[in-house]
Amino acid sequence: MSADADPIAASAARRPPRGARHRVERMRERGAYDRAQVHAVLDAGFIGHVSFAHGTQPFVIPMLYARDGERLLLHGSVASRLINALAEGIECCVAVTHLDGLVLARSHFHHSVNYRSAVLFGRAVAVTDPAEKAAALTRFVDALLPGRSGDSRPPDAAELAATTVLSMEITDASAKVRAGGAKDNREDLALPHWAGVVPLSLVAGTPLPSDDLVGAPVLPDYLRRRA
Amino acid sequence: MSADADPIAASAARRPPRGARHRVERMRERGAYDRAQVHAVLDAGFIGHVSFAHGTQPFVIPMLYARDGERLLLHGSVASRLINALAEGIECCVAVTHLDGLVLARSHFHHSVNYRSAVLFGRAVAVTDPAEKAAALTRFVDALLPGRSGDSRPPDAAELAATTVLSMEITDASAKVRAGGAKDNREDLALPHWAGVVPLSLVAGTPLPSDDLVGAPVLPDYLRRRA
Repeated sequence: MSADADPIAASAARRPPRGARHRVERMRERGAYDRAQVHAVLDAGFIGHVSFAHGTQPFVIPMLYARDGERLLLHGSVASRLINALAEGIECCVAVTHLDGLVLARSHFHHSVNYRSAVLFGRAVAVTDPAEKAAALTRFVDALLPGRSGDSRPPDAAELAATTVLSMEITDASAKVRAGGAKDNREDLALPHWAGVVPLSLVAGTPLPSDDLVGAPVLPDYLRRRA
Repeated sequence: MSADADPIAASAARRPPRGARHRVERMRERGAYDRAQVHAVLDAGFIGHVSFAHGTQPFVIPMLYARDGERLLLHGSVASRLINALAEGIECCVAVTHLDGLVLARSHFHHSVNYRSAVLFGRAVAVTDPAEKAAALTRFVDALLPGRSGDSRPPDAAELAATTVLSMEITDASAKVRAGGAKDNREDLALPHWAGVVPLSLVAGTPLPSDDLVGAPVLPDYLRRRA
């Protein structure tokens, strides 16, 4: 396996100026700033880690998300402190990370992981239009499983009223990717240790139907493709 | 499948007082505060999302971690801004999340995911003792893959000097778990949609050896067990 074959390094998007909040400083060759790369990371998942500060106290919470163009959609109960804090338009930072492999080098020092990640900065606003809120919920369902929204009941007025949808304009963003094999020091290559990569992926198992399904619904196509 | 069979809800540890930073407010029956539950979430992974605030600006970054008793160990280059910011002892919040399944309900509204997560609060200090730093690096390697540290070269003095190890006392922590099936409204049960859970797990694929392995090292036992 070759050393880091990093498609991101070839990105044409310009590195942000020194001090910019989204500039990748460590392993800068792994950083990318063009939106297509950021979108690719976002579209490959549905769970992000959302952080905000309350005074000097930071918080970070896992949340479901969906992308809508240059906006990141989040949602939660209208009673959620977190959601309400974000809805005030405070600064928000969201990280999305996919693990792709364990990198086992000859030295402890060069052990690493392969991953794709994105870090986004922006401020959220509440989506108030009911049709826009319903469309956002459709996106959340399809982010979990493409095609699923058409095979489940859309929200009614009470469910929409119980849900706050937030829309965060992606003001600044970067992607960071590590791919490829272990990078060992030349003088370590003669060591007798196994070296290489253990690929990791999030795999869907056999779907487990609810006990109370009506009749004997067949496994839908969108689910058969995924599982 | 039964509705949320939540082992965590039975936890004996007391709920923190109102306003405590680690008190779970939403879906409180999913929250737990005893350290065994928190440790179980931490010990099942090796990537956390670390957040801190710089003025009103929050940041969140994925980082490798390892647990050492009631401390969370982090590490990075001595040149890392992030690591140096954390080493100043500012407030830090770390979330660790494992995805266990897609929960597909009859309604958009009740779609969810099964997961195990932990959120930790504390302040970090730099570990300066070389022996302690080396021991921490051993923990990071074994957090990736138990048993691996014995089959790779420990750090030399230059590598230790190039690495900052942080130790964060876990001051406050909570775990949150969702398990079990879809929870639909009674009046939705007659809908013709498939409902249930698609299990998800992070799966290791076939190890890919480096091209430049010396001789033909056999796949080590600790790797065969994992893959």
